[in-house]
Amino acid sequence: MAQDSVQNRKASCGLDFACVPDIRQCLAYSAENKYDFSMMPIVHPRYKREFLSGKAKDRQGPFTRSDLLLQSSDWTNMIVGKISPYIDVDSEDHVYRRQCEEALLQEMTFASHLNLCAISVTLTSFNHINLARALFSKVMNPYSYQVWIRVPMESPMVQAMEYRKDIPNKEDLLKEKNNNPWEWWNVFRSVCNYNRRLGVALEVTPDIPSAEEITRWLGEPVRSLIIPTSLFLTNKKGYPVLSRAHQNLLRQFVPLGVQAVVTGSVVHGSVQYYQQYIEHLWQSVKLTDPLVGFARGYEDFLQCPLQPLMDNLESHTYEVFEKDPVKYSEYQAAMLKAIMDRIPEDQKETKSLTVMVVGAGRGPLVRALLNAADKAERKVKVYAVEKNPNAIVTLLSQKEETWHDKVTVVSCDMRYWEAPEKADILVSELLGSFGDNELSPECLDGAQKFLRDDGISIPSQYTSFICPIQSSKLYNEVRLSKEQDKHPLKHFETPYVVHQQNRLELSDTQPLFQFDHPNPDVPIDNTRFKTVQFKIRQNGVLHGFAGYFETVLYKDVMLSINPATHSPGMFSWFPIFFPIREPLHVKEGDVLEVNFWRLNNSKNVWYEWCITKPVPGSIHNPNGRSYTIGL
Amino acid sequence: MAQDSVQNRKASCGLDFACVPDIRQCLAYSAENKYDFSMMPIVHPRYKREFLSGKAKDRQGPFTRSDLLLQSSDWTNMIVGKISPYIDVDSEDHVYRRQCEEALLQEMTFASHLNLCAISVTLTSFNHINLARALFSKVMNPYSYQVWIRVPMESPMVQAMEYRKDIPNKEDLLKEKNNNPWEWWNVFRSVCNYNRRLGVALEVTPDIPSAEEITRWLGEPVRSLIIPTSLFLTNKKGYPVLSRAHQNLLRQFVPLGVQAVVTGSVVHGSVQYYQQYIEHLWQSVKLTDPLVGFARGYEDFLQCPLQPLMDNLESHTYEVFEKDPVKYSEYQAAMLKAIMDRIPEDQKETKSLTVMVVGAGRGPLVRALLNAADKAERKVKVYAVEKNPNAIVTLLSQKEETWHDKVTVVSCDMRYWEAPEKADILVSELLGSFGDNELSPECLDGAQKFLRDDGISIPSQYTSFICPIQSSKLYNEVRLSKEQDKHPLKHFETPYVVHQQNRLELSDTQPLFQFDHPNPDVPIDNTRFKTVQFKIRQNGVLHGFAGYFETVLYKDVMLSINPATHSPGMFSWFPIFFPIREPLHVKEGDVLEVNFWRLNNSKNVWYEWCITKPVPGSIHNPNGRSYTIGL
Repeated sequence: MAQDSVQNRKASCGLDFACVPDIRQCLAYSAENKYDFSMMPIVHPRYKREFLSGKAKDRQGPFTRSDLLLQSSDWTNMIVGKISPYIDVDSEDHVYRRQCEEALLQEMTFASHLNLCAISVTLTSFNHINLARALFSKVMNPYSYQVWIRVPMESPMVQAMEYRKDIPNKEDLLKEKNNNPWEWWNVFRSVCNYNRRLGVALEVTPDIPSAEEITRWLGEPVRSLIIPTSLFLTNKKGYPVLSRAHQNLLRQFVPLGVQAVVTGSVVHGSVQYYQQYIEHLWQSVKLTDPLVGFARGYEDFLQCPLQPLMDNLESHTYEVFEKDPVKYSEYQAAMLKAIMDRIPEDQKETKSLTVMVVGAGRGPLVRALLNAADKAERKVKVYAVEKNPNAIVTLLSQKEETWHDKVTVVSCDMRYWEAPEKADILVSELLGSFGDNELSPECLDGAQKFLRDDGISIPSQYTSFICPIQSSKLYNEVRLSKEQDKHPLKHFETPYVVHQQNRLELSDTQPLFQFDHPNPDVPIDNTRFKTVQFKIRQNGVLHGFAGYFETVLYKDVMLSINPATHSPGMFSWFPIFFPIREPLHVKEGDVLEVNFWRLNNSKNVWYEWCITKPVPGSIHNPNGRSYTIGL
Repeated sequence: MAQDSVQNRKASCGLDFACVPDIRQCLAYSAENKYDFSMMPIVHPRYKREFLSGKAKDRQGPFTRSDLLLQSSDWTNMIVGKISPYIDVDSEDHVYRRQCEEALLQEMTFASHLNLCAISVTLTSFNHINLARALFSKVMNPYSYQVWIRVPMESPMVQAMEYRKDIPNKEDLLKEKNNNPWEWWNVFRSVCNYNRRLGVALEVTPDIPSAEEITRWLGEPVRSLIIPTSLFLTNKKGYPVLSRAHQNLLRQFVPLGVQAVVTGSVVHGSVQYYQQYIEHLWQSVKLTDPLVGFARGYEDFLQCPLQPLMDNLESHTYEVFEKDPVKYSEYQAAMLKAIMDRIPEDQKETKSLTVMVVGAGRGPLVRALLNAADKAERKVKVYAVEKNPNAIVTLLSQKEETWHDKVTVVSCDMRYWEAPEKADILVSELLGSFGDNELSPECLDGAQKFLRDDGISIPSQYTSFICPIQSSKLYNEVRLSKEQDKHPLKHFETPYVVHQQNRLELSDTQPLFQFDHPNPDVPIDNTRFKTVQFKIRQNGVLHGFAGYFETVLYKDVMLSINPATHSPGMFSWFPIFFPIREPLHVKEGDVLEVNFWRLNNSKNVWYEWCITKPVPGSIHNPNGRSYTIGL
């Protein structure tokens, strides 16, 4: 995990050529002006021919320029190939369609021959089903190039609206599917089964779409922003600059690692000025949130949740989590308050508290507890209970060096320990990204038998939260994590811990399961079943649910990874992600209903989940067939 | 294939017991009155207990009657166990819900212990998500019993409507999802992932739903009809009879092989009279359609389409198809007309026609042709071209015995034959269930080089048709046909030939691809791409598309397996079925849009299909990865 807290991004900037009279000259021009790559037509229009019939059918000579003009590595690294704009394989004219299909096949095949790393096509409506099929048949190939699907942020129809008197309301026009480029993209990528080689080349338009529309694009695999030179204003010194609104728009995409492409004729002296401006803009996006720095490189990377109850954590894992700058100071604050509440000022000399740290690990909570007691000037008798024999080594050495008889180290699973006395306060840090998912409830239920009847648990409560998410990035990550010899749906029925970057929240986050400690119920029941409804904000595609937790350590001292209430700077937990098997298209205003179960048997705990609205789906992870947490 | 053209069904009839004071007596009573089985509570209500808390928690003694009361085979064969009606695992009261969960688990487990072949639960709304989960967790088990989901044909709410003044319109009430028992079932089985062990026990209500509602039930896995004794009228002799409307209703379900269950108190003398009446009713359903007789035993049984071009047909296959009573007489009629058109009356002595039968098989078309020529009193010179060397044996022996020099037998693939002369008429029977799917276009394109410029092809045209289908039966058949070591989606990307019985047409059938012969185009293009839209008739679940064909043999002589125009009595083709990967819930009035491609390369022909409305899906069988037809 990269620890640098501030990092900037270098812009990768391309230049779009409408036509290429001499490919070497064009590439040299692009490089001289500091561009990293160029977009150019795969086939020179001069060579256009007809395949089925027509006068150009039997034209002699090559159908495009020779591959020998460039070195192989330049074709691969410097060029994004554009499919000829005249190609319309969705034409209603059967003969023209067949001509175009042949031309498209020729261009796609030649791009493979050149080993281009990407090609681009432009969408102008959502009537591109046959184009989608043709491209999909190529990108299915394991060695295929990427395909950039070029769409404008706002459809030309809507852009032109200002000059039309017959359309009264922009909002109405936007609501029509046919006028919304995101809908074009959505149909296209659905037909292509969300293939991960398909990305968006988003053309920035003079008018900026609504914040919601932009947020939705941030949840899509946007590979590049196409920036027309016509968007640039001229500053006092004569250099090209973007309006503040456009700057803010572009900055939002920088963390996704998008590339920029400049298109259009040079109207500000030199084409280099545009590159310089973009470089400058990219550099201005400071990554100052320590969480972002900490999480760098972990964006959308799936991890299996830890199972610290079944598996002993490793030294490195302890080390990383002990560095959290927020978590232990909050624990210390909670313990301080609890200690002060338990021993009034007038009893500080006479009374002592028994505090047990259960799951003490390498001792961070013990240290925080001793600090809190010092600060409170109260006496505490500390037990540090830990089941991992390797961590016991660390605890014992600290006892020897520092703690001495202030702390009793106990090498035992808290659920089975026969404590010599009862505790006033039980302190633990057993929470996972989804709160109870590392079996804190089961552990504390076992430990509370040695808590006094009026004893306190820190944490005293925790609640899990869920939020419906659109992310074809995460969907593809899940899909690719398929394992041989396992149930074919296993990877779609397993939650993952993941720093979710390229995603969209489709609705407000809602609470799910709550646990309180100590728990006076007889018998204690840690199963849960809850149905949650979400109102969908805008048309989108559901790929799964993000999970978070909030916990009350003691009274008003909280920890949270719920985005709305996230403890600033705390990095110990990434969110969890519950995938669903098949993407589900949802509409603005839809009620999405999901049912979650927390279930158990004598050996395991697991979750099941099932969508029942807007359309009923089937149960994920029935009987824990794909994923369980071992007791 | 069973050849009996008329067959009746014996009714399997059960008796429903509301309570069972003595299980042996009840079973004896049921058997004496000629019932085949009984429905009874799994647990006697006397033993009801509480699991979490309450006064019945620690009740002594067994929780139900002993399994020793009956022989094991009687438990299995004679009893459908009913889950206690008080159990409500979807209760909002958490404690009551937990009690019910424990009770349900106990009853389900005891039913397994008794090895019952089926249990039943009753739905009263569509708020049964937790019940669905609990049952699903049982029926997932490979040795599970069946579960009968008991639902009324009309919801009690709607039934009671006649007594309520505040509801103006029955139609409006029915439109509400909550009042439509099919919707309850639809959510329930979706949550249970269409598990094939879940069936419907449909309770017949006094009011009969609309024809559309009934048709929808006919597309569901209805296992039994529950018939209340209160529905019976008394005839002149004092015996119970059903109204004509109810008789017609019940008759529609007989071909599905449903069982009948009589419920309610005996109000017509003896309980045996009800069984006798039902037996009588079942026997009255005559299966007189020869196609139905022919297809008996093939209902919803998936077959891979024949590939007669790649594989040589076997003798048995030829024999079956030669028996079709309709197909060859229509061919003969077409040939007769064509011959008469080609040789006017005044040239009958002087002129002779050259007719080539391409793909002659064992000679049925040759025989039909010679009959036609005899009838027309015209002279024909016949070539019988066949690529299967085994069938050539049959052709040559017929030539030797009967045809002599009227017929020239040619052992050759028609696509590569160098004919010694040109033909006036080319006759073939190369059509599959979907028309072109056995590569008739490709074969005839090859053969037409030896057709005269003004020559005739019989057939001269064929068109494929598709219709969106709901059938959880077919969906499960496809799902179960999964093959190890194959692409996991293969079985969902393959069309099947299947006699479709337990299914519902969701919209009107529409034409898809058309082929004409001879084909004057240069080059000939047998690829196709077409987008078809369907208006959905009522809420339902799409599982795939039925495919049919119509062909014009010559002028007005047609063959068809399109249900709307089906050639009466012709049995040579069952329909084809194109599955889709995931069931798609559709609503009344939805526009369903599907795209079909017919594609080819030098070795294969294949179809691809993709739904784009109401929600976009992904392409099935891209690049023919799961299914191709070999050239």
